[in-house]
Amino acid sequence: MAAAPVWSVDPRTGKQREQVAVEATAREVDAAVRAAHDARGALTDRTVRAAFLRTAAGELEAARDQLVEAADAETALGPARLTGELARTCYQLRAFAGIVDEGAFLDVVIDHPDDTATPPVPDLRRYKIPLGVVAVYSASNFPFAFSVAGGDTASALAAGCPVVVKAHPDHPGLSELVAKVLRRAAARHGLPEGVLGLVHGFEAGIGLIGHPLVSAAGFTGSVRGGRALFDAAAARPVPIPFHGELGSLNPVVVTEAAAAERGEAIGAGLAGSMTLGVGQFCVKPGLVLAPAGPAGDGLLKSLTEAVSDTDAGVLLDRRMRDNFVAGVAERAGLPGVESPVTPGAGGEHTVGAGFLTVPASRLAQEGAHDLLLEECFGPVTVVARYEDDSEVRGVLSRLPGNLTATVQLSAGEAAGEGRGAELVRELTPLAGRVLVNGWPTGVAVAPAQHHGGPYPATTSTSTSVGGTAVERWLRPVVYQTTPEALLPAELRDDNPLGLPRRFNGTLER
Amino acid sequence: MAAAPVWSVDPRTGKQREQVAVEATAREVDAAVRAAHDARGALTDRTVRAAFLRTAAGELEAARDQLVEAADAETALGPARLTGELARTCYQLRAFAGIVDEGAFLDVVIDHPDDTATPPVPDLRRYKIPLGVVAVYSASNFPFAFSVAGGDTASALAAGCPVVVKAHPDHPGLSELVAKVLRRAAARHGLPEGVLGLVHGFEAGIGLIGHPLVSAAGFTGSVRGGRALFDAAAARPVPIPFHGELGSLNPVVVTEAAAAERGEAIGAGLAGSMTLGVGQFCVKPGLVLAPAGPAGDGLLKSLTEAVSDTDAGVLLDRRMRDNFVAGVAERAGLPGVESPVTPGAGGEHTVGAGFLTVPASRLAQEGAHDLLLEECFGPVTVVARYEDDSEVRGVLSRLPGNLTATVQLSAGEAAGEGRGAELVRELTPLAGRVLVNGWPTGVAVAPAQHHGGPYPATTSTSTSVGGTAVERWLRPVVYQTTPEALLPAELRDDNPLGLPRRFNGTLER
Repeated sequence: MAAAPVWSVDPRTGKQREQVAVEATAREVDAAVRAAHDARGALTDRTVRAAFLRTAAGELEAARDQLVEAADAETALGPARLTGELARTCYQLRAFAGIVDEGAFLDVVIDHPDDTATPPVPDLRRYKIPLGVVAVYSASNFPFAFSVAGGDTASALAAGCPVVVKAHPDHPGLSELVAKVLRRAAARHGLPEGVLGLVHGFEAGIGLIGHPLVSAAGFTGSVRGGRALFDAAAARPVPIPFHGELGSLNPVVVTEAAAAERGEAIGAGLAGSMTLGVGQFCVKPGLVLAPAGPAGDGLLKSLTEAVSDTDAGVLLDRRMRDNFVAGVAERAGLPGVESPVTPGAGGEHTVGAGFLTVPASRLAQEGAHDLLLEECFGPVTVVARYEDDSEVRGVLSRLPGNLTATVQLSAGEAAGEGRGAELVRELTPLAGRVLVNGWPTGVAVAPAQHHGGPYPATTSTSTSVGGTAVERWLRPVVYQTTPEALLPAELRDDNPLGLPRRFNGTLER
Repeated sequence: MAAAPVWSVDPRTGKQREQVAVEATAREVDAAVRAAHDARGALTDRTVRAAFLRTAAGELEAARDQLVEAADAETALGPARLTGELARTCYQLRAFAGIVDEGAFLDVVIDHPDDTATPPVPDLRRYKIPLGVVAVYSASNFPFAFSVAGGDTASALAAGCPVVVKAHPDHPGLSELVAKVLRRAAARHGLPEGVLGLVHGFEAGIGLIGHPLVSAAGFTGSVRGGRALFDAAAARPVPIPFHGELGSLNPVVVTEAAAAERGEAIGAGLAGSMTLGVGQFCVKPGLVLAPAGPAGDGLLKSLTEAVSDTDAGVLLDRRMRDNFVAGVAERAGLPGVESPVTPGAGGEHTVGAGFLTVPASRLAQEGAHDLLLEECFGPVTVVARYEDDSEVRGVLSRLPGNLTATVQLSAGEAAGEGRGAELVRELTPLAGRVLVNGWPTGVAVAPAQHHGGPYPATTSTSTSVGGTAVERWLRPVVYQTTPEALLPAELRDDNPLGLPRRFNGTLER
C-alpha cells in the first residue's frame, strides 16, 4: 500500500499546492518515539539544553523570510502577523533558555537529618527530573508559536524532554521546514536528530498518545479532538499527563458605568479584539455582557461601525470556514437573537466579521440558547444585553471554564468604587487570566503568565505559556541518605551550580 | 428502605463490635458536598486556616487515649504504633500550618509592564487559588496519618479547600470520632461544619467522585480501587485531578560487595522493614535483588533467622488476610520458587511472616513469574538471586513504577567506587524516592519528602506526604492590568503579607 500523501493547501483558493510529506505509519511513529527516547540522555546537560534553545531561535530568525513565506502560503495569516509570531516564538525559546540557566524549576529542597521531628527526618534531597518523551499536538492558528517550535516544544526541551510533534494538517510544509531548522540547531550542539521528531496524519496522532514510551502530551485545539486524546491518555495501561487547551468563550463584562463613560472606545476595542487574526484566537472574546439601555446602545453603535469596516478574511482551512458559516447561521436563527452586523460567508473562500445580540435573560436557563455559550471559531461575538446585576450573575454562573475573563470598568470602579472588586472576585473562578480594562487577545510570554483555566479551557491546572509551563514535563524525586559522592551536583550541600533552593526549610535565592 | 448499617469490626476476632454509622445515600453525599462547597469562603483567610490546623492537632492530642483505643479496636495495629502515628498526624497538621503561614505555596509571580518584550508584557500578577471541594479516600493501613485527619485532608485544608472524606470501612468508628474532633476544632475558629464532611459506603465513594461540585480527589489504596476511581474522575463531563497512591513493589538491590560486607545486618534490616506493621505498608520492600553465591547466602541466613523469630500478626481485615494467604500460596507454587520461611495463615485470624526466593533469571521475561512483580500486601517479600549485573538490569527493566527504590551498597561503593553512582542513576527512573543503605518503611514528614512515583505508584506526578503536597489542590490565576485597589493583598507591589515571590524576574523571599 502506498503511503498516504500529505498535501500543502492554499486556503485562499482551497487548492492543493504540493505534496510535502507522507502520513506516518505505525512503524514510523514507533521509530520516532524510540529515537526520542534514545535521545533523553543527550538532553541531560542543562548548559547544552539552554545553548540549543538559543541556537534554535537564531536559526529560525536566520530563515525568517523563507519561513514566513511558507507559513503565509499555507495559513493566509499574512506576513506582518507571521513575522511577529515568529519573533515571539524566538523570544520564547530564549526565555526558556534563561529559565534553564536559572534552574529554579528544578525545585531543589534539601533537608538535613532532624531527630526532633515526628517521625525523625533522615537526610532528604529532592529535585525534579524530566518525565521522558513528550508528544506535542500542534495548533492550526499559530503555525509558529503553538506548533513545531512553539511553547510546548520549547518548554519540554527546556525540561530535558525530547519531543515528537504531531504536525497540524493546515501547515505541513512549514512544519517540515521548522523541524529541519530545529534539527540543524540540535546538530550544532552534538544532539541527535531524535530530540525533535515530526509525524503527520490523524492515525499517527492516535498512535503517539498510546505509545508506551511517550510520557506526557501537550495539545492545543478543539474540545472534540482534545477530549478524545485526553480520554486516550487516561485510558492507557499507564496513564500519562495530558495538558490540553481545548476551548474557551472568554467572557467580557461591561459595567453600566464603563459603558456610559467610554462605550465608544469599548466597542472599538472589542471589534479589534474579536476580529484580530480573523477571529482565530483561542482567547477571542466570544461573549460580552453589555448593559441594556442607552449606555450599552452607544457601545453597540461603535461596535457596529468598527465591525462593518472590517474586511472579509480567509480562515485557516475550508472546514473551519464551513463550520463558521453554519455555526453563525444556527446561532443567528435562535429566538431573540439579532445580527446588527451579520457574520458569515464573504467571497467563495472568505468570511465576513459580525456579531449577534441577545437578551441576557435568554441565557439564564438551560435550552437552545446554550449554543451561544459554546466557542465559535472565527470573527463573531455574542453581545448579551443585561437589565441588572442579577442577570450578569445568572449568565456567569452558567459558563464553562475559560482561559480568560475580562471586565470593563469605569475609572471610579477601577479605583475601588462600586462593584469593581466584587466583579474581579466573581470572574476569578471562571478563568485562568482575569483582565481589567484590557482585551484578552495577545498572550504575553512572561514569568507570571498563565494560559490555562478550568475545563474545557484546559485539561490540567497548568499553563502552556509563560515561565511555569516547564513544570508540566517534570516529576520530583527525592534521595534519602544518599552519600554526596552519589548525588547529582544539583543536590549537594555546597550548591556548586548556584541553584535557588529550600535548604533546611529556608528559601535561598 | 432502611439505611445500610456500618459496623465496626474487631480484626482479632472477625466479630462485629457495634454499629457506628450508616452508609450515605446519594442525597447525603450531595448534602455533604454542598456543605463543603458553601464552606469555601470561610477558608479564604490563611490566618484562620493555620490556626484551625494547629487547633486540630491540639484537640487530637487531647483525645489521644480515646482515639488510640478506638483505633486499636478496629485495626489491631497496637497502641504503641498508633500512638506514634497519631503524633505524626499532629506533627503533620502543624507542619502544614507553618506552610500556610509562610505562603511560598501561593507561588506569587509579579511582572511589571515591559515594552521591550516580544510581544510587549502588560502588568501581570499570578498566584495560586484553592481548587474547591476535595474528596479524600482514606487508607486502611494508616487510620490516622492517611485517613480523616491525615495528609490529604491536612494539605487540602492548608490549600484552602474544604474536604469530604470517604471513610475506610476498616475503621468507621474511629473515622467518626476523628471527624468530630476536627469539626470541634473548626467551630473554635468560627468555621462551619462543612469544612470537613464524612461519608461511609462504597456507593458514596462512587457518588463523591462524580459529583459536579467536587474539584479534585486524593486516594490511598489498591490498584484496583484506585484505578476505578481514577477512570471515573477522567470520564466526568468535567474531568478533575485524581491524586491516587495505588501500589508499589519497592525494589531493593543489594550489591555483591554490600552482601559480603554486611549481609547479616542487611538480612536483619530487611526482615524488620518487611514485617513492620505486619507488612501493611505501601513502602514495604516487596522485591529484593540479592546476589547468588555465599555473600547472598549469608544475607538469607540472617533474613531467615529474623523472619522466623517474627510473631504472627493480625491483618486489617479478613479479606486482606484471605488475599494474603492465597497470594503467597500462588506465588510459592511457581516453578523455581522456594520458601525458606513459609508465609501464610497463622492462627484463625493471624498470618505468619515469610519470604520466597527465586532465580532472578526467572523474572527476566514475561510469563507466570510476573506475579512476583505485583505487590502482595502483608508480611512477605521475594528475594531474587542474581548471577550478574545484567540480570539486575533485566529485572529492573521489567518493573512497574514504584514509590521507592533502594540500593544497599558497600562502604566503598557508597563513597563512589564501583557501580554505586550508576545504580543510583538506574534506580531513579523507577521511583519517587531513592534510598541508599536505608529501608523504605518510615516516610518522614519534611519539606523535601516525595511520596509518589511512576504509575501505578501514583496516578500523578505529585506527592501525598511532605511540604509540596499542598500543590495538588491549587490552580494558578493571573490578573492582567488590574488596578491595585482591586487586587488581593498577596499581589500588591508593597507585599503587605511578606510573601516569598518572583518580582520582575527576581526571586524574593
